[in-house]
Amino acid sequence: MALLTLLTDFGLADYYVAAVKGTVLRLAPHSELVDVSHLVPPGDLAAAAFLLAAAAPAFAAGTVHYAVVDPGVGSPRRILAAHTAAGHWAVAPDNGLLTPLLAGARLWSVVREDIFLAGEGQIFHGRDRFAPVAAWLLRGEPAEALGPEIHDPVRLAAAVPERAPDHLAGTVVHIDRFGNLITDIPSAWLPDPAPPLRAEVGAHATSHTATHYEAIPPRAAALLPGSLGTLELAAAGDDLARRWSVTRGTPVLVRWTG
Amino acid sequence: MALLTLLTDFGLADYYVAAVKGTVLRLAPHSELVDVSHLVPPGDLAAAAFLLAAAAPAFAAGTVHYAVVDPGVGSPRRILAAHTAAGHWAVAPDNGLLTPLLAGARLWSVVREDIFLAGEGQIFHGRDRFAPVAAWLLRGEPAEALGPEIHDPVRLAAAVPERAPDHLAGTVVHIDRFGNLITDIPSAWLPDPAPPLRAEVGAHATSHTATHYEAIPPRAAALLPGSLGTLELAAAGDDLARRWSVTRGTPVLVRWTG
Amino acid sequence: MALLTLLTDFGLADYYVAAVKGTVLRLAPHSELVDVSHLVPPGDLAAAAFLLAAAAPAFAAGTVHYAVVDPGVGSPRRILAAHTAAGHWAVAPDNGLLTPLLAGARLWSVVREDIFLAGEGQIFHGRDRFAPVAAWLLRGEPAEALGPEIHDPVRLAAAVPERAPDHLAGTVVHIDRFGNLITDIPSAWLPDPAPPLRAEVGAHATSHTATHYEAIPPRAAALLPGSLGTLELAAAGDDLARRWSVTRGTPVLVRWTG
Repeated sequence: MALLTLLTDFGLADYYVAAVKGTVLRLAPHSELVDVSHLVPPGDLAAAAFLLAAAAPAFAAGTVHYAVVDPGVGSPRRILAAHTAAGHWAVAPDNGLLTPLLAGARLWSVVREDIFLAGEGQIFHGRDRFAPVAAWLLRGEPAEALGPEIHDPVRLAAAVPERAPDHLAGTVVHIDRFGNLITDIPSAWLPDPAPPLRAEVGAHATSHTATHYEAIPPRAAALLPGSLGTLELAAAGDDLARRWSVTRGTPVLVRWTG
Repeated sequence: MALLTLLTDFGLADYYVAAVKGTVLRLAPHSELVDVSHLVPPGDLAAAAFLLAAAAPAFAAGTVHYAVVDPGVGSPRRILAAHTAAGHWAVAPDNGLLTPLLAGARLWSVVREDIFLAGEGQIFHGRDRFAPVAAWLLRGEPAEALGPEIHDPVRLAAAVPERAPDHLAGTVVHIDRFGNLITDIPSAWLPDPAPPLRAEVGAHATSHTATHYEAIPPRAAALLPGSLGTLELAAAGDDLARRWSVTRGTPVLVRWTG
Repeated sequence: MALLTLLTDFGLADYYVAAVKGTVLRLAPHSELVDVSHLVPPGDLAAAAFLLAAAAPAFAAGTVHYAVVDPGVGSPRRILAAHTAAGHWAVAPDNGLLTPLLAGARLWSVVREDIFLAGEGQIFHGRDRFAPVAAWLLRGEPAEALGPEIHDPVRLAAAVPERAPDHLAGTVVHIDRFGNLITDIPSAWLPDPAPPLRAEVGAHATSHTATHYEAIPPRAAALLPGSLGTLELAAAGDDLARRWSVTRGTPVLVRWTG
């Protein structure tokens, strides 16, 4: 049974997600569907790219990822089918959403209009174009038949974390439900054991490190190795993003103080 | 594998949806379940009817739709099983929720009490009555055996859009996550190409038309053919409902100005 | 096809739930997944225990319940596999979450580290430890092979409702989406027919009883038998918790006034 994940900014109160799923199951019956999230902030490509890159590795090779955050729906922007280095498939608009999966991926621009549906209007390609492409891949049909292979996908600009002898520098790339601050600084860059350090985020800072939340002292924050292989900052049982008023994109500096 | 969609006002933070799904899968194992939405505002039959009508066409014939927004739960209101003109099945309270699917449908009033469950209380028919009826249909058992066929279902009153030589008139029937205003005016009523026009919603108006969001000028709103075959009003990258303070039910007038 | 339910405090906007599901389906392909809820307030064990106990009975014997609300993730707290008196399986941290399912259950402390995944960090056991244990059980492999049987699980303290000749006393244990106040007082303790009574919650009270919502007089509240076999208080078409400013844990007193 083929497996499809779905990631959109369609929300959970509309008919949009169900229309996509109904279309996929009509065209590729018996597929198993798993939601990544439909609560991506409207049009937020960076948030969608982060979630897709974070969720995808848990899935088996052969999984198809449907990722549609598409402010350009109806415009001539391309529709991409991708086969990633990890052996996954993805279907997404060519707007940068696939950026984290592009290394080593093959990409096709879908121009095979006969598989598109003649749905109403030009503003729900999620149902009328992306869903049939996902179903095509779920049925195991060849990506090559969807259109020409391309090599110039749109890419999102990404800040690059920095490693220096006396500090690490990066960015808060995600704030999770618990208010933890996920950074893009690889956890492996932190010496083991960690030297005395100071982690600064905006006007706030902490000198604590931990391996898990319960080990963080009450009312303190700490730097710890996160679940994606990057450092995060967290407070035990509290929402650190709210306490420190941190938003995505805030710079993070980790300085050795020893 | 039989397919069930679910539409309720049960929310996503309670045990209600899971209890329904567990019951269905206990009685009709291996059914595939697809959520339409569980975030219908409590008791909002018009919102539920809109979502059901919008989502259903994407699904294959034979799909069973479970639609339970049921302020009258426990009262003598009837439980309906329906077979629609499109070959879908539906299970819902007889309170108007099925209104958009009634044309050409056959309807049965479910009185077959032996298939109901003796669950606790009289306030969770979603689990104790609607779920076993859905399972009955998912197993392919005959609707005729559920109770007498009926021809007098409760219907929701609906405003009817109006087409005149110099204008179109209708209503905002839904506001989506993006703040787009979905109307009940058929897109096909708009001449192609559209003449110069003015679309008025409350105290606000626009003269722009578009086929997709990116073509809407910055800071403007536009009238465009929506994904359900009706006109909608939208702003590019902005929540028009909030900007214009529009709520569901607001009248929409499209006048030719040429 | 094996069935897994999922209950967490991971939310619906993160990659966490998808990473768990991907891992489970990678290790136990073709399992059917049903969400109970992922909107448990962060770290709220009592809320999670309530939802698990409420949802589980609807599912068939053999169902596996994945229940992860785990403020102690990464600490030495145990990971439990359980086989309940009802023939269900459960996987959860040993922090009290399983309390309502413990009567008659067998429990194993999972120490079989070779089935754990070497995921990044120590803060996502939901993906790296609980998911493979769930997959183990979904594949039908023996719980005995996961670790030693244990008999001293952590239990949540629970208030116990009280039955006296002239009153019943209990607690609001849950407030649902509709603002109904779910208590822990067994509905069977209410004489049938109910005598004249007064139900008191904080500074508010009602003398009405009902069997379903529509029978509650306009603008009144009523005591009625709920869907879990316990009494609840509700208003028809209104959010009683908000109207009366009631929160979980508030005492409830039902006194005979006749």
